Amino acid sequence: MNILEIIEKKTKGYELTKEEIEYFVNGYTTGEIADYQAAALVMAIFIKGMSDQETTDLTLSMANSGDILDLSTLGGIIVDKHSTGGVGDKVSLVLLPIISSLGVKVAKMSGRGLGFTGGTIDKLEAIPGYRTEITEGEFIDNVKEIGISIISQTKNLAPADKKIYALRDSISCVESIPLIASSIMSKKIASGAQKIMLEVTYGKGAFMKTIEDAKKLAEQMVRIGKLANRETNYILTNMNEPLGYSVGNSLEIIETIQFLKGEVLPEDLKKVVLELGANMIKLAGFGDNIEENKTKMLENIKNGKAYQKFLQMVQRQGGDVTYIENIEKFGKAKYVEPMLSKVSGIIKELPANAIAKYVCDLGAGRVKKEDKIDMQVGIVLNKKVGDKIEEGEKILTVYSNKPVEIPTDLVVIE
Amino acid sequence: MNILEIIEKKTKGYELTKEEIEYFVNGYTTGEIADYQAAALVMAIFIKGMSDQETTDLTLSMANSGDILDLSTLGGIIVDKHSTGGVGDKVSLVLLPIISSLGVKVAKMSGRGLGFTGGTIDKLEAIPGYRTEITEGEFIDNVKEIGISIISQTKNLAPADKKIYALRDSISCVESIPLIASSIMSKKIASGAQKIMLEVTYGKGAFMKTIEDAKKLAEQMVRIGKLANRETNYILTNMNEPLGYSVGNSLEIIETIQFLKGEVLPEDLKKVVLELGANMIKLAGFGDNIEENKTKMLENIKNGKAYQKFLQMVQRQGGDVTYIENIEKFGKAKYVEPMLSKVSGIIKELPANAIAKYVCDLGAGRVKKEDKIDMQVGIVLNKKVGDKIEEGEKILTVYSNKPVEIPTDLVVIE
Repeated sequence: MNILEIIEKKTKGYELTKEEIEYFVNGYTTGEIADYQAAALVMAIFIKGMSDQETTDLTLSMANSGDILDLSTLGGIIVDKHSTGGVGDKVSLVLLPIISSLGVKVAKMSGRGLGFTGGTIDKLEAIPGYRTEITEGEFIDNVKEIGISIISQTKNLAPADKKIYALRDSISCVESIPLIASSIMSKKIASGAQKIMLEVTYGKGAFMKTIEDAKKLAEQMVRIGKLANRETNYILTNMNEPLGYSVGNSLEIIETIQFLKGEVLPEDLKKVVLELGANMIKLAGFGDNIEENKTKMLENIKNGKAYQKFLQMVQRQGGDVTYIENIEKFGKAKYVEPMLSKVSGIIKELPANAIAKYVCDLGAGRVKKEDKIDMQVGIVLNKKVGDKIEEGEKILTVYSNKPVEIPTDLVVIE
Repeated sequence: MNILEIIEKKTKGYELTKEEIEYFVNGYTTGEIADYQAAALVMAIFIKGMSDQETTDLTLSMANSGDILDLSTLGGIIVDKHSTGGVGDKVSLVLLPIISSLGVKVAKMSGRGLGFTGGTIDKLEAIPGYRTEITEGEFIDNVKEIGISIISQTKNLAPADKKIYALRDSISCVESIPLIASSIMSKKIASGAQKIMLEVTYGKGAFMKTIEDAKKLAEQMVRIGKLANRETNYILTNMNEPLGYSVGNSLEIIETIQFLKGEVLPEDLKKVVLELGANMIKLAGFGDNIEENKTKMLENIKNGKAYQKFLQMVQRQGGDVTYIENIEKFGKAKYVEPMLSKVSGIIKELPANAIAKYVCDLGAGRVKKEDKIDMQVGIVLNKKVGDKIEEGEKILTVYSNKPVEIPTDLVVIE
């Protein structure tokens, strides 16, 4: 077997065997296959596509290129959750404590943000003391003891995926459904997931612009899950406007706390959290009836169990719980400026992409991996799409540590 | 402009502009564009193809990436000739002195052999003293003085083509008509050609396996020539069996001398030489009638002018003419072994690829660029395809400097 034959086969549109895919993934990870040969093969795959079997073989090869987390000592079914990214997306932070409070084991590795999508790990680090980088042993112990732990991805998780992902980015081969699907699924499998619940987003603030493409990606991952023996389910989420009210790290932690306490339950966020959570509960074997699962989730918000679970997790990870108990402690950014409406009408759009870009400019996100994040800055929406607004009323509020100039493209009113 | 946008455009099948192609060729030549990005773009071109305009722009960009030979001081129309390669291909060696003896200016840069195709320059170096690497000034002076010079390609000729060609070879992107065509034409244009005569070979001993593909390649080059303002014409040559009788460096020089003296004129070689030569004479403006041109060529063989021109060229380049005058001086290889027929019948095949591979194994060719060549070794055919043969008669004779084992796949008799 050699890489030239494998490249040639793919240029002709033939299906690669499991052995050929493994040969490529292993050879590229060790550096025996050169970047330019990998680039040629990835481009051929990008143009010619891959079958479900090839996509699954690529997924498993990439998962096997590094450590596979063994979560079998935890007992029960470990269900992982993945979102293809959104703006104001605090879904994991809200959802996982709720289902944990209902008995579902949560052993969750999350990512950091890059570009306009925020990362769950960055948001958790807005809580002083919260240790996102703990050992695998501590991680498993935490789940055993309190049923939940959310940490940063360990370093040697699917290294082939990291290398191929970086390559794709530098050769305009990002937007390929089999390549996106195998990248996501390889990391989930390497993280020890036995079942997988996906939230595939679409719209202005998402990678997939249309619901059709989001569905294609979701179904591709379901087929990989089936072939890889990891039951997978999905929901599709509209990401034209930010989820909930807040965008920004500590601002989203505050919204998470308010949600878990039952104080503020934005309709769009609530819908996603309940839908994903109810499905995860079902996949974990804690109840087949989706509607009943949703009711149980709402009950555990009302009776305080979900909030208590979050508090317990923060404490266990070394976080300062006085911040959770008193959100005023997070402190406000130096400048707090409202954007006021110049007209009366209906909020037609709060474009997630424009808002995310602005929040990133404020310092809440990273352009490069090395960039530092400003935890305090961001935006809180005072209105959501479809709301009525009067002239002079607040549309949104900007939190910034530098003088504020609000761009006009953050809202469309009709 | 950036390389990511250019790659993306080509993956979508759009036509690249002249500026985009120049940006890529220049950036890759200087090293600003990485190998893996060039690999991705070349693969996208390989799969998606290129329009005639794109192929011409690529050709001219590659030609302009290094020195362009200025042959304008020579006066007259400089017609270059190119063959896509064959086995036993001594066409340039025979043809160029003939047309030079008819007044056509010949300023020819040739290549060395790699793999199974031999190189004109290697063959010339079988003549002791023949200097293939002379300065541009000497080269032009030689053409001015005696009307002909054949030398090795100067170093900085179309460096972008060299780099892209090597890349294509390492990513399975060799067999692409626009890429082959632009590679050939860029070198011709950089060599100062004003008009171009092509011999496109097909069959077992050629790069193109079918006449249809050879014709596609030829017509692609004619279209480039038209757009690049270099009139281009072509002939198609069957390369299933070797051209003429001999394969090997000094053996082919001997055959060249015998041909130019009119002693041995193998039908297939004669046909190609006359066809190409008559067209070159026409392109150079020395006679529009192809049949008349052929007659003039045969006359100059008969009257010794063609042979005298060859002798003059060899002398001018520092070669020892006593070898030309007495071919016995070339010396014979240590082992001279005939292959005898075990049956009576008709020669059905003398597969050029199998013969070339065997001759290369004997030491007449290079597998790697650095390999040394054994000038003496090779094969002389005693029969050609279609000839009758009796049991015990010689099919071919092997010249070798190591003990001889003749493989059975060099001939098919029916």
